[in-house]
Amino acid sequence: MAQNIYDNPAFFEGYAQLPRSVQGLDGAPEWPALKAMLPDLTGKSVIDLGCGYGWFCRAAREMGASEVTGVDISEKMLARAAELTDDARIHYQRSDLESLILQSNSLDVIYSSLALHYLPELDTLSGKIQQALKPGGSLVFSMEHPIYTCATRQGWLTDDSGVRYWGVNQYQAEGQRVSNWLADGVIKYHRTLGTTLNALIKAGLIVSEVNEWGPTQAQIDAWPALAEEAERPMLVLISARKAQ
Amino acid sequence: MAQNIYDNPAFFEGYAQLPRSVQGLDGAPEWPALKAMLPDLTGKSVIDLGCGYGWFCRAAREMGASEVTGVDISEKMLARAAELTDDARIHYQRSDLESLILQSNSLDVIYSSLALHYLPELDTLSGKIQQALKPGGSLVFSMEHPIYTCATRQGWLTDDSGVRYWGVNQYQAEGQRVSNWLADGVIKYHRTLGTTLNALIKAGLIVSEVNEWGPTQAQIDAWPALAEEAERPMLVLISARKAQ
Repeated sequence: MAQNIYDNPAFFEGYAQLPRSVQGLDGAPEWPALKAMLPDLTGKSVIDLGCGYGWFCRAAREMGASEVTGVDISEKMLARAAELTDDARIHYQRSDLESLILQSNSLDVIYSSLALHYLPELDTLSGKIQQALKPGGSLVFSMEHPIYTCATRQGWLTDDSGVRYWGVNQYQAEGQRVSNWLADGVIKYHRTLGTTLNALIKAGLIVSEVNEWGPTQAQIDAWPALAEEAERPMLVLISARKAQ
Repeated sequence: MAQNIYDNPAFFEGYAQLPRSVQGLDGAPEWPALKAMLPDLTGKSVIDLGCGYGWFCRAAREMGASEVTGVDISEKMLARAAELTDDARIHYQRSDLESLILQSNSLDVIYSSLALHYLPELDTLSGKIQQALKPGGSLVFSMEHPIYTCATRQGWLTDDSGVRYWGVNQYQAEGQRVSNWLADGVIKYHRTLGTTLNALIKAGLIVSEVNEWGPTQAQIDAWPALAEEAERPMLVLISARKAQ
């Protein structure tokens, strides 16, 4: 079972303060790009793997989805998500994404935001996704970019001329990385982008789009700290589909 | 028209000394991985975009290809390639990859090694490739990895503990990069991996495999300088296919 860092009190406290927790999707600068990768949700059956506070689940219903399921490992996150809606077409389910069971041929859209880098491998889940999607169904997800996750010590370095670089090493050494983001000892998994894409392809999915997300100039103007995301991608957004 | 750096005397001299020029495919450590991405070439019609000395063209014939065309911008490279074979089924053609004309539905396999990062954009060529491939045909190519090409100044940096990092910046700033590899003023183009993959997908190709190439331990043992290629990918190998 994957680490349930979200129920760690320090992590939960920190997470609750993030713009994307307080403001929801509007606090996530990659959301407009991720939203543009979604198919029309009208009348669709949708699942969100790692739903957190359920911001996407509620948005999917506003975008016309007929049924939405939010899955998360964290009891605290699901409790908060449940408080935030009384929509009978939104269902919350507590599960680890590693032991998750999905019904064959049952879903039009599988969505996941910033959750899959907590999984040690993607082959198993990719196979389940391919089975669970209806023909023509879509997978749309974001995860931390391997340029961001790879290094032995994540951070910026400055050369003799004062120019900043994001440090990359150990790129080929896939596996566990321990960070101290919000709490000590947060376990994530580094995989090359090739490994992620090949897992989808081997499962039988067709890659539709790969977006190594960076901010627009308007976003940088509005939120100057985003400028560094133009220097190195922190996130990758991927869409894939099951053949008709 | 793309820069024809290969006919620059200093570049040509330097290039002629590289292991991959002297030893051919055996001097290219990524060749076993790239070869593994090729379909069976028996009886196939094959083209090599940026064929250089024609090492791959000759290898393709040995692997059973029925007709092989090598395309290159450099007159000197093609002259040398022509000297190295008397195989009537290998044809050499001088062309810039930007103005190249390919016959519709004429090719089983389109191959390219370390050439496409010299092109300012890939949308046009991807469209031509999709048209030129027969149904079920394959594209297999290598190019410089964007992690390698992106930075304002390519190089390694060392942190306070003596750990080395490859410096990444300007990742989202696609476009021209000037390097002084073998000769001054060599023009290459940086594109995100997403942009490359999306160009293929938009042209109608189906991505089959993405390999952000790194050396095996046996290769590092035999050729210790390759160790740094495990720290950051210098090359990406990609295969795609046209639907049946």
